[in-house]
Amino acid sequence: MLLHGKPHRSIWTEPGDPARVCIIDQRVLPFELAVETLTNVESATRAIADMHVRGAPLIGVAAAYGMYLAALESTREDFLRAAAARLKQTRPTAVDLFHALTLCLKSILKMPEGPGRVRVALETADRMAEESVQHCRQIGEHGLPLIENIGKQKGSLPVNILTHCNAGWLACIDYGTATSPIYLAHEAGIPLHVWVDETRPRNQGARLTAFELGQQGIPHSVIADNTGGHLMQQGLVDLVLVGSDRTTRNGDVANKIGTYLKALAAADNGTPFYVALPSTSIDPSLRHGRDIPIEQRDPDEVRYAEGWDGSKIQKVLMTPADSPAVNYAFDVTPARLVTGLITERGICQASEAGILGLFPEWR
Amino acid sequence: MLLHGKPHRSIWTEPGDPARVCIIDQRVLPFELAVETLTNVESATRAIADMHVRGAPLIGVAAAYGMYLAALESTREDFLRAAAARLKQTRPTAVDLFHALTLCLKSILKMPEGPGRVRVALETADRMAEESVQHCRQIGEHGLPLIENIGKQKGSLPVNILTHCNAGWLACIDYGTATSPIYLAHEAGIPLHVWVDETRPRNQGARLTAFELGQQGIPHSVIADNTGGHLMQQGLVDLVLVGSDRTTRNGDVANKIGTYLKALAAADNGTPFYVALPSTSIDPSLRHGRDIPIEQRDPDEVRYAEGWDGSKIQKVLMTPADSPAVNYAFDVTPARLVTGLITERGICQASEAGILGLFPEWR
Repeated sequence: MLLHGKPHRSIWTEPGDPARVCIIDQRVLPFELAVETLTNVESATRAIADMHVRGAPLIGVAAAYGMYLAALESTREDFLRAAAARLKQTRPTAVDLFHALTLCLKSILKMPEGPGRVRVALETADRMAEESVQHCRQIGEHGLPLIENIGKQKGSLPVNILTHCNAGWLACIDYGTATSPIYLAHEAGIPLHVWVDETRPRNQGARLTAFELGQQGIPHSVIADNTGGHLMQQGLVDLVLVGSDRTTRNGDVANKIGTYLKALAAADNGTPFYVALPSTSIDPSLRHGRDIPIEQRDPDEVRYAEGWDGSKIQKVLMTPADSPAVNYAFDVTPARLVTGLITERGICQASEAGILGLFPEWR
Repeated sequence: MLLHGKPHRSIWTEPGDPARVCIIDQRVLPFELAVETLTNVESATRAIADMHVRGAPLIGVAAAYGMYLAALESTREDFLRAAAARLKQTRPTAVDLFHALTLCLKSILKMPEGPGRVRVALETADRMAEESVQHCRQIGEHGLPLIENIGKQKGSLPVNILTHCNAGWLACIDYGTATSPIYLAHEAGIPLHVWVDETRPRNQGARLTAFELGQQGIPHSVIADNTGGHLMQQGLVDLVLVGSDRTTRNGDVANKIGTYLKALAAADNGTPFYVALPSTSIDPSLRHGRDIPIEQRDPDEVRYAEGWDGSKIQKVLMTPADSPAVNYAFDVTPARLVTGLITERGICQASEAGILGLFPEWR
């Protein structure tokens, strides 16, 4: 998508030097645009664990490039297995990470030790990145009619879409998941307005989604996470569109903490609530959302807020110095609250039957 | 309640000089403890409008003292009526403000122009303050058995209570509304733990409720507003206790934005959801919550977060510089989601029958 007017992706290898994997350090957006170069598995591991990159699809692809950087260091099986194990430890909730590492390791180890493993590692990472772009584009195409239909009913009034966290191109490689239908609807000339949940404690909505939407010229308003229910009661939301870090076989959706509250409000007000996700975020091995491990992060993410103080990025303490905090990063929205899942193969019910209808290979 | 170990109230007249009305400037808590002296109706009006003082019961009492300060300036009817009109314009949602002003003006104007009006104005404000303290204490006594009963079932495990915003003694004169049963349960030796919603955008939870609880020695954890639903799903909340800025005749509850989302989660998980409020926060003249005017505040409250940067209170921008924001201050929780109202006369159903059962004078 556009970044300062030019098409951009969230991860890429440097032209002419594919041993340098470039990412945007998302911790300093929107205040600074810092490109970081990953040159070994250690820096890739840190980039995922410390959230220089985040978002389920991007985490998966970044881990794949991490395996490629590992192969550049050594193509010995024990080294590669250890690298995969370290990358796997970075984040517990998004399933794309585990999918990507399993697939990469399998592909690489099919080759004998030596430069063939490096070549396959790079090819696998590149292919995963391309597939992610294609899946996100397809999610956009399948989701677009939902927005078009609302647009037809609203005439010249904008379609109001609420989104939580960042399920945008910065969370993926391009297009995004929840944002992909929005970007395609904008391209198609449908008037839109997006309510952007700021998404405490890390403010991926306020910092990343608002930035993305602004860069594409899409009208939006940032709101406190507390606001969505009131907006839905007032008829100010036509559609809720969110992403997912892991969706289980029965259609339960783990996503950024707070998603469940918006799903409840959507159900209470008859507002359609759709989850946009590539199949790499579906975990057919888990039967229920309650089986998904929920990451707990540093309480200081809650105790502090981070932003621009006029000259630099600054953290400010928002609680009494001695008040503790607790920081769950995700919650699980039960399938019964989800109107539908928008995948690269089409829209389905959030249910085992719905998912298996589109993905019969998981039967 | 205790402030640095000494009993304190949120508003008082200076001993020996009742022409000086003192408040705690709540905008700088918990980082600084600044006592502000109000000496005229202008400063009282600004203190309410700019939220030096906030919380429905305190707003009402502060307005009453504002009328007393007005009477000190002039006891002419037109001046007093203009003062009441200005105080009335400060905040639109909390009904205590309008109750207090109507009552004050009526009492003052019963007296002939002159010092009698000043005396009655002070007596009225003092009486309202004392009544608020008494009401809050009674709310605590009526709410205490709810916590005691859960405590009995939990044995030595703490009772987990979730609260939103600040309905504490800082929002009232003493005890608080939602916090009053908590303080009485703590005094009674019941083990407690309070989940404190930070309550964006102004963080009254993180800044005021956490501070209050810490000052009384009550275990608590600050959480992002997104977190309560997940906690309830995990069985980590035994009781939700919140306040109200205005409750209508049918039991609909206007309270700080985000309350509705917690009520939905409580209903979805079978968690008791109680609203603690004095009768001054009930508006028997309104039939439905949809009739309550909802204040919209400066979007910069959402775009920025305010906290302690290590040496001073600092605002940091959390959105792209050109991203707009929208800032609704309250939402309405439908009566059907409220387990009960805890008032100074006892607990009742959130319904017209329930409310009129306790307050037959509104029949």
